[in-house]
Amino acid sequence: MTGSPLLADLIEALRCLPGVGGKSAQRMAFHLLERDRERGLKLAAALEQAMQRIGHCNRCRNFSEDPLCALCANSSRDRQVLCVVESPVDVAAIEQATGYRGQYFVLMGRLSPLDGLGPEELGLGLLTQRLGEGEIEEMIIATNPTVEGEATAHYLAQLARAGGIRPTRLAHGVPLGGELEFVDRGTLAHAFGRRQIVE
Amino acid sequence: MTGSPLLADLIEALRCLPGVGGKSAQRMAFHLLERDRERGLKLAAALEQAMQRIGHCNRCRNFSEDPLCALCANSSRDRQVLCVVESPVDVAAIEQATGYRGQYFVLMGRLSPLDGLGPEELGLGLLTQRLGEGEIEEMIIATNPTVEGEATAHYLAQLARAGGIRPTRLAHGVPLGGELEFVDRGTLAHAFGRRQIVE
Repeated sequence: MTGSPLLADLIEALRCLPGVGGKSAQRMAFHLLERDRERGLKLAAALEQAMQRIGHCNRCRNFSEDPLCALCANSSRDRQVLCVVESPVDVAAIEQATGYRGQYFVLMGRLSPLDGLGPEELGLGLLTQRLGEGEIEEMIIATNPTVEGEATAHYLAQLARAGGIRPTRLAHGVPLGGELEFVDRGTLAHAFGRRQIVE
Repeated sequence: MTGSPLLADLIEALRCLPGVGGKSAQRMAFHLLERDRERGLKLAAALEQAMQRIGHCNRCRNFSEDPLCALCANSSRDRQVLCVVESPVDVAAIEQATGYRGQYFVLMGRLSPLDGLGPEELGLGLLTQRLGEGEIEEMIIATNPTVEGEATAHYLAQLARAGGIRPTRLAHGVPLGGELEFVDRGTLAHAFGRRQIVE
């Protein structure tokens, strides 16, 4: 189609990226070839390094090329609070949005028996061991507000209580900057029921 | 932010792709790491090969890793018609949409004195030499219908006539499948003026 088999290979390979179809892949390939070969080569090197060397942190299971990730290795972070999330993207989101300075634990999934994801796959053994170390006082459960996320949260709360640790959940309610009209019924009912005194 | 410098490098490198901002880059990196490391490595290899080995065809200037691209090397294609386009994407578009079986010449740009793009940068010497070989009878000028594309088309038509070759242009008019209401005025006026007898 293009006269160059290598170009056809590149266009096909770019389609492994989420949200990239045939047209976008073609546009990306031509853009790199025409204007930015140097950055294209940098991307190739970054991809290779990341795919081959990034594993999981031994302590929090987040992505890391070292045995301990940079967040776990940072001795200035609060060791009394542990935030449990489903995925590394959630760590990134919380780090970007909040001033949280505690520890994390990444489940790399949620309890989902139908997909074969049980306590073992989520590293709950490692988590229990960590809760047993005695440093942690609060476990912030930040799983997604989906059915499976809620079930996971329930399980985690029991685990925390069994270890004498206070479990907490992110607040539910009306998002900031939205319009009530467009908030789903469940969220609105919850926010209405949990209304707070204006101080 | 993520606890892994290599992951941060990958996210940054993915932003060289057109249309990919910080959020998409993050999503792509996590997707590849969590679900598709093998295809991520394939993409790295395809990128490296393409960036390092793809040059230009000696005959038509299209992207090619060989001295002659697959289209120029294909002896079954009609050597009497030459289609001149601005960019390799145009070759791909024409190959995909039409049954054209002739030759191509890729300008890799358009006449644009302000950007330092003159006849030399567009390889018009090579084109003139090719017109002089005596095989070509028709030059299909398929530059973009922009101001610069039209100026380039005008220049190319002169070049063709000087070589005794018939220059032709793609037809302008109302796009198929659209609604007249949304066609721009210039196109509509043109299509109206060039209306054709229904046979």
